[in-house]
Amino acid sequence: MQNCNDSNTTGSSVDLSKIYHSDIFPMKENSSLSTREFLQRVIDICLEFIDESNDRSQPILRYYDPEEMKMKFNFDIGEEPLNLEQIVRDCAQALYYQVRTAHPHYFNQLSCGLDIVSLAGEWLTAAANTNMFTYEIAPVFILMEHEVLKKMRQIIGFNDGDSILAPGGAISNLYAVIASRQQMFPEYKTKGLNALPQQLVLFTSEHSHYSIKSAGSVCGFGTDNVIEVPCDEKGKMIPSELERLVKAQYEMGNRPYFVNCTCGTTVLGSFDPINPIADICEKYNLWLHVDAAWGGGLLLSSKQRHKLHGIERARSVTWNPHKLMGTLLQCSTIHFKQDGLLLETNQMCADYLFQQDKHYDITYDTGDKVIQCGRHNDIFKLWLMWRSKGDKGYERHIDHLFEMTDYMVKGIKARGDKFHMVLENPECVNVSFWYVPNRLRGIPHNEERIKELGRITPILKARMMHKGTLMISYQPLGDIPNFFRNIISNSGVQKKDVDFLLDELDRLGHDL
Amino acid sequence: MQNCNDSNTTGSSVDLSKIYHSDIFPMKENSSLSTREFLQRVIDICLEFIDESNDRSQPILRYYDPEEMKMKFNFDIGEEPLNLEQIVRDCAQALYYQVRTAHPHYFNQLSCGLDIVSLAGEWLTAAANTNMFTYEIAPVFILMEHEVLKKMRQIIGFNDGDSILAPGGAISNLYAVIASRQQMFPEYKTKGLNALPQQLVLFTSEHSHYSIKSAGSVCGFGTDNVIEVPCDEKGKMIPSELERLVKAQYEMGNRPYFVNCTCGTTVLGSFDPINPIADICEKYNLWLHVDAAWGGGLLLSSKQRHKLHGIERARSVTWNPHKLMGTLLQCSTIHFKQDGLLLETNQMCADYLFQQDKHYDITYDTGDKVIQCGRHNDIFKLWLMWRSKGDKGYERHIDHLFEMTDYMVKGIKARGDKFHMVLENPECVNVSFWYVPNRLRGIPHNEERIKELGRITPILKARMMHKGTLMISYQPLGDIPNFFRNIISNSGVQKKDVDFLLDELDRLGHDL
Repeated sequence: MQNCNDSNTTGSSVDLSKIYHSDIFPMKENSSLSTREFLQRVIDICLEFIDESNDRSQPILRYYDPEEMKMKFNFDIGEEPLNLEQIVRDCAQALYYQVRTAHPHYFNQLSCGLDIVSLAGEWLTAAANTNMFTYEIAPVFILMEHEVLKKMRQIIGFNDGDSILAPGGAISNLYAVIASRQQMFPEYKTKGLNALPQQLVLFTSEHSHYSIKSAGSVCGFGTDNVIEVPCDEKGKMIPSELERLVKAQYEMGNRPYFVNCTCGTTVLGSFDPINPIADICEKYNLWLHVDAAWGGGLLLSSKQRHKLHGIERARSVTWNPHKLMGTLLQCSTIHFKQDGLLLETNQMCADYLFQQDKHYDITYDTGDKVIQCGRHNDIFKLWLMWRSKGDKGYERHIDHLFEMTDYMVKGIKARGDKFHMVLENPECVNVSFWYVPNRLRGIPHNEERIKELGRITPILKARMMHKGTLMISYQPLGDIPNFFRNIISNSGVQKKDVDFLLDELDRLGHDL
Repeated sequence: MQNCNDSNTTGSSVDLSKIYHSDIFPMKENSSLSTREFLQRVIDICLEFIDESNDRSQPILRYYDPEEMKMKFNFDIGEEPLNLEQIVRDCAQALYYQVRTAHPHYFNQLSCGLDIVSLAGEWLTAAANTNMFTYEIAPVFILMEHEVLKKMRQIIGFNDGDSILAPGGAISNLYAVIASRQQMFPEYKTKGLNALPQQLVLFTSEHSHYSIKSAGSVCGFGTDNVIEVPCDEKGKMIPSELERLVKAQYEMGNRPYFVNCTCGTTVLGSFDPINPIADICEKYNLWLHVDAAWGGGLLLSSKQRHKLHGIERARSVTWNPHKLMGTLLQCSTIHFKQDGLLLETNQMCADYLFQQDKHYDITYDTGDKVIQCGRHNDIFKLWLMWRSKGDKGYERHIDHLFEMTDYMVKGIKARGDKFHMVLENPECVNVSFWYVPNRLRGIPHNEERIKELGRITPILKARMMHKGTLMISYQPLGDIPNFFRNIISNSGVQKKDVDFLLDELDRLGHDL
């Protein structure tokens, strides 16, 4: 990709350097030709970016520090309009400096890759530019939500229930926290903290996503009342510890009410054992929420779904298609076993927005059951992608990610002392490991070596980014210092990419 | 637009009916040709949709009831993959049945129209498919956020401060509620309701958006503790009523702490008087939040910004570029006068996600100061649009919307007894009115007539939708029965469109 497109090369008669935003739709009538020329130029840049992102010989990024980037890229917004040729150049520049998250050597986030059918869906969604609060203005998309969310609930094992799309898993988890409070302590909605003499308490594993703690803060419980339950060495919540902590809270006079069970932790990709946790929830009258934002995709594979055995016992489930299912960002869902609860929780009776006397069945309007009011259309890109794959194609998609992960784990083990696994047998597509440079090989894996491996991990990451050939995330976890967490969630990753990743780490880091 | 595209008419050598999702990127290497062919076909459908949406002779929608729509559109997701020709047809079908929100005769929502430069930005955003939590994976877009949000704060009149983009104004308002609580009662974050012996109380006008009440519920204050302050006949909060209610709450032993001042109410488009409200907030130590989700765009016009006089006295401001500024959905911003408060409020110290020892200045990472964790990139479509218009172009954009609104108000008045204004002189681009059919003209505008006008309003709306020529929203407001609220927020609306709208109402409704 060129740093910028210096000339109009499409052979069209429209010279974009002579026209402005006011010369195309919607401000200029009958401007189809100019409008199309401008949009096509931007699309051509996007198509080139997609080609490059899928070309393994191209860099993932051209790294610059923030201060350097400010010199390279002109962020200014001026007084005067800029011509559309400049706007096209801005687009080319923005992509030139952008990280190629679709590159097969980008293993950095839970969401990697760029599914082309989902992209087509998102492009169409943008052109439709509608809001998801009513059937009136989004008829096809609203019905699509109903169908897809119903299908997802069936896959979970909920026969009835209700669901909604949310802007990310953290907000989905927030929905679970407020809906559970509504169901168990309905007077909270109107009376707030005066409704209940007891402090409500939530439980989540020490490896769970921080959004549960955040929800505890937002909802006024206080983060001290979101209790972290210890995990075993595999990163799974220990049910007996949960029971001990629940009892302790009851003894203190507090009211335990909500347990978050994580299926697919962020770092290790571990699955909390649902059934023993569900037993405790039944025994102590606690709401069971399953945060399967990450691991939900495994439900689509008959080989993998046993890791979420018992999920149908949950009362709410978070599941993000924008992660393992590869849907474009953002696409997150929250599902409830009980129908009507979302409306009961969030309805503010805003008749001025959601009229009750419309000429169609208003049960399809969603505006009054969400905390967002307006919502972006996040369903079409998922529906279109799922339709193109079918259930079988999605199963193969998930199975492929796990095959590549197995291949990576085997590759690490085959490379002997060049790597050290943090978690021997990962349950998900997260592979957690240290790269071991020459000087640290063949010595005992003691505290000193671990500390040193942790120290060099960020340095190796910086080398990756400066060379632009590879991106893998790293983090500490509790007492364990920095280590790499590799994610294979791009369906385009092949064995040769895994080989490249392991060899490239060695090329970049052997002398560290 | 055809109901569906039956054949491949682009003359390409790729037959999409023979290939599947697994034959293009990312699953198939070296599949640029097929990938481009598929995406171009979808883009061609989008371009046709845009042409049609800007063609005044085309319908806005083809209306079907939900049950009819389920017969017309095949929502099924099957076991087997579908070929890409079918996927292209699905795209054409979805747009065929979709409401054209960009049509110049669509006056239905606060967000109308489709800005083409913003659309180009959103298409590029989709191709880049990145998440906004770190500089590492979104360098250009993160710096762009900094620049644009700083510019917006300067326009508001905040010299310093911090801001974030949120998925809609309701979430922006939620940010204001939790950040104000953090600033004034910081122990709330960890201890929750036990931190404070007093009940916290919020105030907002009876015409304000329901998201303040919703935030009261979510945050555990209870909706009873979100006090509705009466408005005058123009829909503006009455400051003396606010003071009376604040005093009453103090006398009850509660702790008033938050006042929401609406600049641009949803229905009437009214502006609460900021300065008198700010005086009361200073006197009683209350947080002043300005919800300018709707009215914020007026800050860009020297003719209009006086309606938000005093906004710099607020401690937080919500402002949605996806409304008056015409940015594609969604694009909402929340601004704070105090820098560091967002981080203080929302930081959960998730080092495992937001590493503290990166090789660049991590103050650019935003992940730890939001409640979302991952965020969609909502900045590029705004930056690109603003850059193309420049400040002057945006001022003309806003001024044009007000000129068209003035023209409409004059047009209504010129049409004598065919219309009756609900609010004589609107402050924003909301025009609230009843259409008066033949039989109800020239009779006293008493309770009986008002009731009858309210009764026929939904019937007239249904006629619009069935004919597909016009869309205007209606709602009741307090004791006032249903009336129309017309919005001109599409920069493509011309005088002839306003004439059409008023005449079409008469054609559709004169016999009611």
